[in-house]
Amino acid sequence: MNTLSASAPDSTHWVLTIVCNDRPGIVHAISGAIVEAGGNITESQQFSSLDTEHFFMRLQVESAASREQFEASLAPVVARYDMAWHLDIVGRPLRTLVLVSKAAHCLNDLLFRERAGQLPVHMPLVLSNHNDLAGLAEFYGVPFETHAVTSAGQKLAFEDRVMDAVEQHDIELVVLARYMQILSPELCERLAGRIINIHHSFLPGFKGANPYRQAHARGVKLIGATAHFVTSDLDEGPIIEQNVVRVDHSRSPAELVAIGQDEESRTLTQAVKWFAENRVLLDGQRTIIFK
Amino acid sequence: MNTLSASAPDSTHWVLTIVCNDRPGIVHAISGAIVEAGGNITESQQFSSLDTEHFFMRLQVESAASREQFEASLAPVVARYDMAWHLDIVGRPLRTLVLVSKAAHCLNDLLFRERAGQLPVHMPLVLSNHNDLAGLAEFYGVPFETHAVTSAGQKLAFEDRVMDAVEQHDIELVVLARYMQILSPELCERLAGRIINIHHSFLPGFKGANPYRQAHARGVKLIGATAHFVTSDLDEGPIIEQNVVRVDHSRSPAELVAIGQDEESRTLTQAVKWFAENRVLLDGQRTIIFK
Amino acid sequence: MNTLSASAPDSTHWVLTIVCNDRPGIVHAISGAIVEAGGNITESQQFSSLDTEHFFMRLQVESAASREQFEASLAPVVARYDMAWHLDIVGRPLRTLVLVSKAAHCLNDLLFRERAGQLPVHMPLVLSNHNDLAGLAEFYGVPFETHAVTSAGQKLAFEDRVMDAVEQHDIELVVLARYMQILSPELCERLAGRIINIHHSFLPGFKGANPYRQAHARGVKLIGATAHFVTSDLDEGPIIEQNVVRVDHSRSPAELVAIGQDEESRTLTQAVKWFAENRVLLDGQRTIIFK
Amino acid sequence: MNTLSASAPDSTHWVLTIVCNDRPGIVHAISGAIVEAGGNITESQQFSSLDTEHFFMRLQVESAASREQFEASLAPVVARYDMAWHLDIVGRPLRTLVLVSKAAHCLNDLLFRERAGQLPVHMPLVLSNHNDLAGLAEFYGVPFETHAVTSAGQKLAFEDRVMDAVEQHDIELVVLARYMQILSPELCERLAGRIINIHHSFLPGFKGANPYRQAHARGVKLIGATAHFVTSDLDEGPIIEQNVVRVDHSRSPAELVAIGQDEESRTLTQAVKWFAENRVLLDGQRTIIFK
Repeated sequence: MNTLSASAPDSTHWVLTIVCNDRPGIVHAISGAIVEAGGNITESQQFSSLDTEHFFMRLQVESAASREQFEASLAPVVARYDMAWHLDIVGRPLRTLVLVSKAAHCLNDLLFRERAGQLPVHMPLVLSNHNDLAGLAEFYGVPFETHAVTSAGQKLAFEDRVMDAVEQHDIELVVLARYMQILSPELCERLAGRIINIHHSFLPGFKGANPYRQAHARGVKLIGATAHFVTSDLDEGPIIEQNVVRVDHSRSPAELVAIGQDEESRTLTQAVKWFAENRVLLDGQRTIIFK
Repeated sequence: MNTLSASAPDSTHWVLTIVCNDRPGIVHAISGAIVEAGGNITESQQFSSLDTEHFFMRLQVESAASREQFEASLAPVVARYDMAWHLDIVGRPLRTLVLVSKAAHCLNDLLFRERAGQLPVHMPLVLSNHNDLAGLAEFYGVPFETHAVTSAGQKLAFEDRVMDAVEQHDIELVVLARYMQILSPELCERLAGRIINIHHSFLPGFKGANPYRQAHARGVKLIGATAHFVTSDLDEGPIIEQNVVRVDHSRSPAELVAIGQDEESRTLTQAVKWFAENRVLLDGQRTIIFK
Repeated sequence: MNTLSASAPDSTHWVLTIVCNDRPGIVHAISGAIVEAGGNITESQQFSSLDTEHFFMRLQVESAASREQFEASLAPVVARYDMAWHLDIVGRPLRTLVLVSKAAHCLNDLLFRERAGQLPVHMPLVLSNHNDLAGLAEFYGVPFETHAVTSAGQKLAFEDRVMDAVEQHDIELVVLARYMQILSPELCERLAGRIINIHHSFLPGFKGANPYRQAHARGVKLIGATAHFVTSDLDEGPIIEQNVVRVDHSRSPAELVAIGQDEESRTLTQAVKWFAENRVLLDGQRTIIFK
Repeated sequence: MNTLSASAPDSTHWVLTIVCNDRPGIVHAISGAIVEAGGNITESQQFSSLDTEHFFMRLQVESAASREQFEASLAPVVARYDMAWHLDIVGRPLRTLVLVSKAAHCLNDLLFRERAGQLPVHMPLVLSNHNDLAGLAEFYGVPFETHAVTSAGQKLAFEDRVMDAVEQHDIELVVLARYMQILSPELCERLAGRIINIHHSFLPGFKGANPYRQAHARGVKLIGATAHFVTSDLDEGPIIEQNVVRVDHSRSPAELVAIGQDEESRTLTQAVKWFAENRVLLDGQRTIIFK
């Protein structure tokens, strides 16, 4: 049976992602390795990028094989096609480090949904440059550290603490949940592909300070949020998810901020969820999202 | 190459859909047949239904093989897994018969989008029980026949004309584009799985006459449309697509009708497009939509 | 100045709602009373119902007048047009009693948004028939009482406690935030027009047990939520707000439940917010929402 | 009666818009003039701009008064408050000149909806720099002129023809329905406040050629359209309406174009409808939309 319902009690539900140069026969080769590992494909998505000529695939597989057995079956195919690949267990909580400043909306949403069983992450630590949100983290039983960042030296120390925590907790994803400091290019580089940010979005975009005030002045009718990978090119990393909501002329800049925050929290949580489920793959400056 | 860009000048872009009982090894078997036919998979979607224990797959494949060669490669796999299957050419216009009454919005959208190259259908004929829309069809060069349906005998004759037209033009899909007569159970039966209807939808639903007036009286905040397969159980066939739009207390019943018509036309056109692209598969009372 | 920015330091921002039979001159009469009270209209919305021939108006007014002065100016107009009216202060927290059972999503959203300053309510008490959510209320410093409801006698006692709490705390709104017991017709009657419920909504609607399973079986493409006033006619009271979100065939019944819960919490919070801001007026079986 | 249903057979349904500096008593003064003209207010919206300290109002009024009588009643109020004002008849078709190039989607939507009675405009002429859409206009019985614009001289002549047509047909609104030539600053100036354009919109925005290709390269998840007043500052005039729709990584640049066109046509038609209904007022760089 390919279906979950019929899974043997000792089988595991695996998720496998692969990226390689696009060539004939990949699907047949991979599915052969899965048959060899006694696996059944329960979900499959693929995409061939015309931009990079890369082939992307995400599979969910039920198999009673051990990780060693599964990897042994995959090894020759992986080698033949020179694949980048990742094998994981469906639903395993992703070790996630969250960075915040003062705004609560994104952190609250992450914590509530993790608690509600809707977000497969484990958050061993929240780091902040302010202590406003310590109580919120405490309620959910998540350790919270505050380190002031008001000088270049403190900023360096904060980033060192981030990298220490990444190693100490074997962190797989860093989430900037309205962390209001610009990260150094070095940190962005070291965390490339595993650090996500959220920011507001407008049509058209606005450069410079106080974008909500600018959006108000121009009378925009839609405001929204974009979750994206962080690169050293500020706010220009590959986009993971975007949402917008309708507003009208009667909204004050303060109301636009409140509306924008709702979009920010739901957009960020969605991006983290997809990442934790191994649904986000990078294709140059673009993301492939296997929803 | 799996990609479209690299297609050899003499290759064809095929779409293959299969349905069978869910068992291990299906993907490997199908992909093997495709490799044998010299094909490259450019798009693939699958779904295992826990409800019916059926396996569904839609593949787009580039191959220089002839239809005979492709079918010969598939034959042993199809037989082994007892598959229902369909092999078609991507973008081939679907032979579509449209039935209308007086309302123009759905027919206009179908004709305009076909002309704009956004809807892969060929409409050899429009049948109607009124002649109001003859000019619209004429503008787009589509033959239009009017047959009054004001008696049981005329209704029978109309339905005979429908079936004649289906055979005469080798019709693959019948679209009820606001055709306001109830079809006989016999006609529904004969066209099962290849006839689509559109109707308005409300939260909550309203039974009986003049639903827009009922929706107004209850003060609904959302109105929409549902495109579904026609069965003899009126308005209860498998759902293909749904859309809604927001309304408020200030809307008159007449305005609700106008808003609902917009939803009807875009929802119906979307359903027809997916059907024509072989993206709609039936799983008991549900549809699988491989967007 | 009509504008908020120019308000004198000792002025108050009032909200006035009126309902009366529709007749000529109402706007002129009301605006005259406001001029007499030294008030400036900063926001105004009106609606004439063709269904009930009632006239509805909501005004925001800045005035340095005392409540007594304001009411004295309004008195002759109110009497002449036989108006139902309500005068309140903009932003005053509405005294709100929340009833819950086990599901946390709606209560969490209400508490978080009240704390974030986005929801003008004061919640002096949460009543529940289960103690699962006591910790959540405690975190936000809101008293929480659990009373088991597993017999007819306990149900009666619970409803007595509700009415006691309504009197004790001078409650203006009762919110059923996924309270899973059916209220007696007597309680519905006593709280008519000031008790709001939330429930899931589907296109089409489904009667009977386990609607998410039914929605899955039918393959619906949209699921949503409806916030409405409670009447003794179960789930049939005047609608305040509705939302939907798109789903597809791959969603399990459990996933549909999770998606539906998001719609429930945001829809309920929106309805409570509008009610607290005096934006919800009843027009027979319909609501007028002055957003 | 304030309601439409009770209108005397000889009454007219008027729409009145006013803009003036914000001061106390405006509503009372205006409603007094309306009472004097024997009018009943059936719809009323107002807005006080904190940015410009202007007061905006739109009223629908039923009255049996002649235009002269109505204006005579308004005259003293208009003078006292130094109002800009406009008095029109509800539903009167707005004289509208449409400019197009080759793309049909916007023109088709405008013509179809005018014919369907959903868009209160009268289009006496379509001007184009290509003849591709002549047949479409002809089907709807609208005169169509083609003037090539491939030189500076021809461009000047085209713009002269535009201004001639504006005078000849007493045009109230010029609509750029995908007219792909940049207008001269002089023409923009002369038509200021009565010329509307439509263009695609992305999050984030993209400058330069082929924005859909750029949006594809960046992997945007939302694409949309913005309808705005034309100013000599290209694509930067006050925004009237915006819409977006969701896309994913699988969309080719060509598909993004098709999706964007749908948003363009519905957004432009909506903007034209609101303008024709006197629902669009200018507040500096912002629009007030009284929906």
